[in-house]
Amino acid sequence: MARALVISVIGAGDAPAAVCKLAFELGCEIARRGAVLVNGGRTGVMEAAAEGARSIGGHTIGILPGYDRAEANPHIEFAIATGMGEARNAIVVASADAVIALAGEGGTLAEIGFAKKMRKPIVALDSWREIDGLKRAATPAEAVALALELAGKLGRRS
Amino acid sequence: MARALVISVIGAGDAPAAVCKLAFELGCEIARRGAVLVNGGRTGVMEAAAEGARSIGGHTIGILPGYDRAEANPHIEFAIATGMGEARNAIVVASADAVIALAGEGGTLAEIGFAKKMRKPIVALDSWREIDGLKRAATPAEAVALALELAGKLGRRS
Amino acid sequence: MARALVISVIGAGDAPAAVCKLAFELGCEIARRGAVLVNGGRTGVMEAAAEGARSIGGHTIGILPGYDRAEANPHIEFAIATGMGEARNAIVVASADAVIALAGEGGTLAEIGFAKKMRKPIVALDSWREIDGLKRAATPAEAVALALELAGKLGRRS
Amino acid sequence: MARALVISVIGAGDAPAAVCKLAFELGCEIARRGAVLVNGGRTGVMEAAAEGARSIGGHTIGILPGYDRAEANPHIEFAIATGMGEARNAIVVASADAVIALAGEGGTLAEIGFAKKMRKPIVALDSWREIDGLKRAATPAEAVALALELAGKLGRRS
Repeated sequence: MARALVISVIGAGDAPAAVCKLAFELGCEIARRGAVLVNGGRTGVMEAAAEGARSIGGHTIGILPGYDRAEANPHIEFAIATGMGEARNAIVVASADAVIALAGEGGTLAEIGFAKKMRKPIVALDSWREIDGLKRAATPAEAVALALELAGKLGRRS
Repeated sequence: MARALVISVIGAGDAPAAVCKLAFELGCEIARRGAVLVNGGRTGVMEAAAEGARSIGGHTIGILPGYDRAEANPHIEFAIATGMGEARNAIVVASADAVIALAGEGGTLAEIGFAKKMRKPIVALDSWREIDGLKRAATPAEAVALALELAGKLGRRS
Repeated sequence: MARALVISVIGAGDAPAAVCKLAFELGCEIARRGAVLVNGGRTGVMEAAAEGARSIGGHTIGILPGYDRAEANPHIEFAIATGMGEARNAIVVASADAVIALAGEGGTLAEIGFAKKMRKPIVALDSWREIDGLKRAATPAEAVALALELAGKLGRRS
Repeated sequence: MARALVISVIGAGDAPAAVCKLAFELGCEIARRGAVLVNGGRTGVMEAAAEGARSIGGHTIGILPGYDRAEANPHIEFAIATGMGEARNAIVVASADAVIALAGEGGTLAEIGFAKKMRKPIVALDSWREIDGLKRAATPAEAVALALELAGKLGRRS
């Protein structure tokens, strides 16, 4: 059994409607392409992306900061309770083949840092334009296409 | 969307054929009952249980010790790369509604310790008979039935 | 600079006076022998052992479950805030050359499991008599002497 | 017993001599002011800062990625073996009252992200000038003075 590619969408837990709309579209596109969505499992960008992916039948995994799986948003199919707090960001990144970053704050910055350290492809959609080594995409569809292409090139590890 | 119940099967990474056969049957029974299997994602009991669950179309999640998802056995559908080493046992337990323990060693003991601490139901099948607070089951089907019953009683948290 | 040997004392966060008295004496003896005490940094056995070690000028390190160092008991000299919840038990064990176990519950069981997995010497003082592979000691002084001897034999790793 | 303030110095594990010289001076200054140094315990900036702090008798704590305390540099007085890989960066930040960042790469970025998320003061010395919310310092002495002042203002938590 070949495992599906896994894409992480990272962004703020409290995001404006326009950003959540982009997250929803990213989730749709990831599912449409047959990939699995992994993220932090909570609100904002995490919830919108999961809702998008589930809306067309994709799988969604939420890596939660606490021990209570009820903290997952309702669009998370598989809730992983890490009890690790903020350090769970490292698991989100490590469990993905590529990362798509939407405008975010401290947590997003930590995830980008981990992705750089773990040499995972990072695609930025309206995000952290000032950091080196991120690939830019103009639309959700372009971001997902680029993430999948980069994940394939770097050699999927599972 | 109500999430499915999640059962963890814990046991040694290097186990004799008779124990692996029990693990396979536990995996089959978990999937047959519509529950999700979560475990440590590696060899031995972990692999046999996942093979059983996948053999009848169940979902399987492997919580890996390292950062390389290729370390997952081939029957793990969703591989979570924690990079946390042995401490990943806490995540295996926290992500389940109930735990079924097969004969195991240090790692299994740590998982039982976490399950007691987190007040998760623990069902023992041929395992650690000397520890208080474990419910006993004589067959894989009885173990899964008991685990699901106890998980339901304690109140699923997600 | 050769680092001092490090001994972990593990036991319940809520312990009767007689057990806390043993923990205090273990802490004293560890400091008297020039070793460092590491534990979970909270109450009960953890606090009594740290108080004993500090009472004669020893160093004490507390590996806390949360992010707030104010949760450490007042006898912890260096408070490490892991934010990892119960999984911090793996760090307590990994950071020690040997482990001394006092009567405890789930958390203690998890720590013994990790110690077995990590092949650290475990000395039991009035604890978990039913688990294989623990060395027995009758008094705090004997427990510390045995822990230091076993740590030395296995080859200190730092 | 009031615990000493704790300062984290973060930066690359492979750094040029000029950056290591700054790290050494930061370590000296932290110890001179009576604070404890915490960092990732390895090479480069981590080793130079620890050497500086120990050179005038300060305490140094290294939060290691692996389980082997022998990986700590020789100037680490207390080596904490997390086995958590890159996620140990969250513990480095959480265990400090303030963070001083030197020019670094992915790991440093993750630590800055965590510090922002955990609302710890961050002082930048020749580092990541493009990120919001970092205070700037021109010299090691100024960086340490500013870090201690900000740590005091925000209210030490232990």
